Amino acid sequence: MKYPIIIAVDAMGGDNSPNKVIEGISLHSKSSDNVNYKIFGNMDLINPLIDKYKISKERISLIHTDKLVEGEDTALSAAKKGKDTSLWLAVESLKNDEAHAIVSAGNTGALFLISKLNLKMIENIDKPALSALWPSKKGMNVVLDLGANIECNTKNLVDFSIMGSALFKALFTNEMPKVALLNIGSEELKGNAVIKETYQILNENKFSLFDFKGYVEGNNIMEGDVNVIIADGFTGNIALKTAEGTSNFIISELKKALTSSFIGKLSSLINFSNLKTFKEKLDPRLYNGAILLGLNKPVIKSHGSTDSIGFANSLKVCEKTINGNLINQIKENIR
Amino acid sequence: MKYPIIIAVDAMGGDNSPNKVIEGISLHSKSSDNVNYKIFGNMDLINPLIDKYKISKERISLIHTDKLVEGEDTALSAAKKGKDTSLWLAVESLKNDEAHAIVSAGNTGALFLISKLNLKMIENIDKPALSALWPSKKGMNVVLDLGANIECNTKNLVDFSIMGSALFKALFTNEMPKVALLNIGSEELKGNAVIKETYQILNENKFSLFDFKGYVEGNNIMEGDVNVIIADGFTGNIALKTAEGTSNFIISELKKALTSSFIGKLSSLINFSNLKTFKEKLDPRLYNGAILLGLNKPVIKSHGSTDSIGFANSLKVCEKTINGNLINQIKENIR
Repeated sequence: MKYPIIIAVDAMGGDNSPNKVIEGISLHSKSSDNVNYKIFGNMDLINPLIDKYKISKERISLIHTDKLVEGEDTALSAAKKGKDTSLWLAVESLKNDEAHAIVSAGNTGALFLISKLNLKMIENIDKPALSALWPSKKGMNVVLDLGANIECNTKNLVDFSIMGSALFKALFTNEMPKVALLNIGSEELKGNAVIKETYQILNENKFSLFDFKGYVEGNNIMEGDVNVIIADGFTGNIALKTAEGTSNFIISELKKALTSSFIGKLSSLINFSNLKTFKEKLDPRLYNGAILLGLNKPVIKSHGSTDSIGFANSLKVCEKTINGNLINQIKENIR
Repeated sequence: MKYPIIIAVDAMGGDNSPNKVIEGISLHSKSSDNVNYKIFGNMDLINPLIDKYKISKERISLIHTDKLVEGEDTALSAAKKGKDTSLWLAVESLKNDEAHAIVSAGNTGALFLISKLNLKMIENIDKPALSALWPSKKGMNVVLDLGANIECNTKNLVDFSIMGSALFKALFTNEMPKVALLNIGSEELKGNAVIKETYQILNENKFSLFDFKGYVEGNNIMEGDVNVIIADGFTGNIALKTAEGTSNFIISELKKALTSSFIGKLSSLINFSNLKTFKEKLDPRLYNGAILLGLNKPVIKSHGSTDSIGFANSLKVCEKTINGNLINQIKENIR
């Protein structure tokens, strides 16, 4: 890989942008020497922020446009806005080999559609899949598909296993990915026809990229015994959002309990540093940066409501996918 | 309903049985005057426990058998063991109208198969569904199907809406059930064909038993804005188990954080009563008692690993389904 890495950044999407985007770039640039940033958006808003957050001018280029995709746009209406929105221009810079990866905190559907319109699918992959990081007791999992494809066939799920493993390897270079299919039981007989057929294929063929570990049930996703978890987009989305809701519920009940009395408040205060460790481990900003896999360049979606720390983390994900040679890993392992 | 209610209890299934079962009956009998218990199992083991836990002899009858279904049995091998296991005899007592409901903490597959073999389906219902209680910020939800049917059609999901609402009404008599379909988006266009078709039917028809509220996403299950959540058995099982795993993960991280230093231990101690409230709210024993809906008598499955408090709670669920007229509610509302 030729340095520096260039990340195309749509500066205009998501809550509190471009402020959090530019601050996020500033944070990320301090931890990474080899990354430059192509920033797409309104220069009148962005230039003062570049000064404010003291980003070295050598590491950035700013491409001005005052057209942008709104959160309320449908994917289609966003694409119809044409080729001079910050999002379209950012994606196009990948198509023209002027950048290695793109990140946007804006409209998810628009990012995916405009990426699919401009970038090529990797040969022999039928469907792109959305993957994200998911914490476990032993570290971090990769889970996909999280909603790009409601219905999937066996070939899709096998492709997802390869793409997810390549991503896991790019992010965590020293580990051999352990792949499992998300299912409702651990016995071979359980599940629907597509899952059972995928099990057979993954079990009978040798894949150099990963070890296949069979099925994983929802209650074991976070145990950390497997680290690349495969599902169709419907199932993966249900699992991800249910985990999110459960987490919110428990944290809100915990807060209620800890602040419901004077003693509670006092001891929570004493316990502050411990609860901080706990909160940090569960901080969703740590896991920010979902990856659309299957296209010939890395497309990263930052959560719209994250802040500069979360956005910096999604830049980190971009960097790792490039340094870890994600796209080539996928190409070499897809037949 | 003619008092007393009679609950058929398989005393031999699950961890630490019959001890937890008999202690659970003792606990439940103190809170409910109008329930008697038909206990099926080994009298040599059960009689000393009845004495130990001081259960009034007038409220129980004991039917002796030394044959039992083991946890390792498949549903089929359990059924083949014949008609004199404690589980079969308990189910048969419902068939013969000698009891109003059955509860077992034993083998789930065996309980369902033997119930289906002995009890009749409610007319016009094609498939039984497994439902359970699920905590929310505002109280308690009913969720189904949790795994009895991997694939469901529109008719099944509509039936589940009616059965789940009848259950919710039986358990929480003063509330009008709000039904929602578990889906990956809240817009009408999202989801697979079966879900969209079910949406149409529930939306266009007026059901006297419940209000239809559209779709709910996984992250909103626990908000409490809807309280009867409908899914096919595959999706429901993935959601339930993912919530379970997420909850375990967070609690274990919390424990680590709170006990990782002297100060942490100390303040956890001060905070004991607050954390107790928190733990109680999340105590899975409170939600113990899954209900197989669709048969003409209530069939309740206690978690195998619960203790006497959890088992007593599943007896409470039996009692409520009878007092709340669950089966008739379903019959009257199914066309």
